Amino acid sequence: MAKHRGKQPGQHSSEEQAFLFDLDGTLVDSVYQHVLAWREALEHTGIELAVWRIHRRIGMSGGLLTNALLRETRRPVTAADAQRLQKLHAQAYARLHKQVRPLPGARDLLKRLSRLGVPYAIATSGRIESASSALKMLRLPPGVPVVTRDQVQRAKPDPAVQDSVVVGDSVWDLLAARRARALGIGLLSGGYGKEELQQAGAYRVYQDPADLLNHLDEVGVRS
Amino acid sequence: MAKHRGKQPGQHSSEEQAFLFDLDGTLVDSVYQHVLAWREALEHTGIELAVWRIHRRIGMSGGLLTNALLRETRRPVTAADAQRLQKLHAQAYARLHKQVRPLPGARDLLKRLSRLGVPYAIATSGRIESASSALKMLRLPPGVPVVTRDQVQRAKPDPAVQDSVVVGDSVWDLLAARRARALGIGLLSGGYGKEELQQAGAYRVYQDPADLLNHLDEVGVRS
Repeated sequence: MAKHRGKQPGQHSSEEQAFLFDLDGTLVDSVYQHVLAWREALEHTGIELAVWRIHRRIGMSGGLLTNALLRETRRPVTAADAQRLQKLHAQAYARLHKQVRPLPGARDLLKRLSRLGVPYAIATSGRIESASSALKMLRLPPGVPVVTRDQVQRAKPDPAVQDSVVVGDSVWDLLAARRARALGIGLLSGGYGKEELQQAGAYRVYQDPADLLNHLDEVGVRS
Repeated sequence: MAKHRGKQPGQHSSEEQAFLFDLDGTLVDSVYQHVLAWREALEHTGIELAVWRIHRRIGMSGGLLTNALLRETRRPVTAADAQRLQKLHAQAYARLHKQVRPLPGARDLLKRLSRLGVPYAIATSGRIESASSALKMLRLPPGVPVVTRDQVQRAKPDPAVQDSVVVGDSVWDLLAARRARALGIGLLSGGYGKEELQQAGAYRVYQDPADLLNHLDEVGVRS
C-alpha cells in the first residue's frame, strides 16, 4: 500500500509543491493573546487603539506592525518608540503564552506532509524568541526550516517559489503569497472572515489545519 | 439655530427612527476580553476550543452562547454545565474588565442622538451584572432603556419596531435586526469582517461608533 502513497519522505520531485506555513493563528492558537499583549503595550506607551484594529494588523512582518500601530496615532514614530513597544509586547505576551495551544490538526497536518515527503517550512512574522515556544509545541521533525516573513516577501519569483503554497490566517500572509507568486491558502483560525481572505487572494479558505488536512487533494497534494 | 435641528430631546415623531445598540464590541471595546474569558472558562471545564470559534459566537444572546460553545464538544450539555461555565466566565472576565474602554465615538454618538431627540436603547446579550460597568463607562443620560437581546428577537413586527435601527458588531445582532424587521447596521469594532456583516444583512457597515456618527445622514438621521 505504501507504494501507492508515492514518494518516501525526503524524495521531492520538481512537480510537487512546497508548503510555507505561517505560525501564529495558522498552526498555533495565539492570535488573541498577541492582540491583547499589543493592547497592553500600546496603553503603556500612552496609545489607546481599539482592539479590532490591532487584530487586523497582527501577522504583518516584524517592524511593519509596530510602525503601523504607531502610525494610527498620527504621531511621529522614533526607532526608540518602536523598540520600547516591542519590548512591552514581549513582556505582556510572556504572561499570556501559557494559554496558547496548537490549533486542531496542526501536528497531524505536518506529520502527514512529512510522511508524504512534501517539503514545508514555517514562516513567522514574530521574533524568533517569542516563536520558539510555539515551535516546540508543534513537535517539528528536525530540519524544518523556519524563516521570517520578510524573507518570503522578498523572494524572487523563481520557479521553485512559484510552486509553493503559502498557508496563513491573515491578509498579510496572502499578500506575501502574491508577492512570491505562490498559491495562497487562508485559514479562519486567526479570526479573519472568509470573504476578507478571499478578497486578499486566497485560492481556498479552510477553517483550521484539521480542515486543510481533510482537503489536501484540493490544493494539489496526492495522498 | 436650535430650531433647524428639529425636535427637542424627548419629542419623537412616528416618522423618526429609534436606535437599538448592542453593547460589547459596538459601544465598548470588550469583545476580545470576553473571548479570552470564555476560553479560560471552557478550559477549566475540560473543553479545548479554538479561540476564533469562541469569537464568532460572542454576542449570541444569553444562554444560547453557552449552549453553542458546549455543543462544539459534541457532549450532552446539562443545565449545571451551562451554569458552571457562565460562572467561570464571569470570574475570568472580572479580572480583565479593567482593560475595557468605550469605543471611539461611542459617547459622542449617544450624546448627539440625545441632542437630536432620537430615542435609543441599549441591548446586551450578557448578564446585566457584567454589563453594568460598561454601561457606567458610557455615561448614559437617565432613562435610557437597557434590554436583553432576547427581548429584541422576540419583538413583534409592529410599525414602531419596523422603524428602528439595530446597530451591532456581530452577525447575531444582524440576525436580531432581521427577526425584528429592523434596519441592521454593522460595526467592524467587534472584529468581524465587513463582508461577513454584509452577508448577514447589514444595510451599511461602519468602522466604529465614530464612523457611524460621521455618517448619520446615511442611516436617515437629519442633523
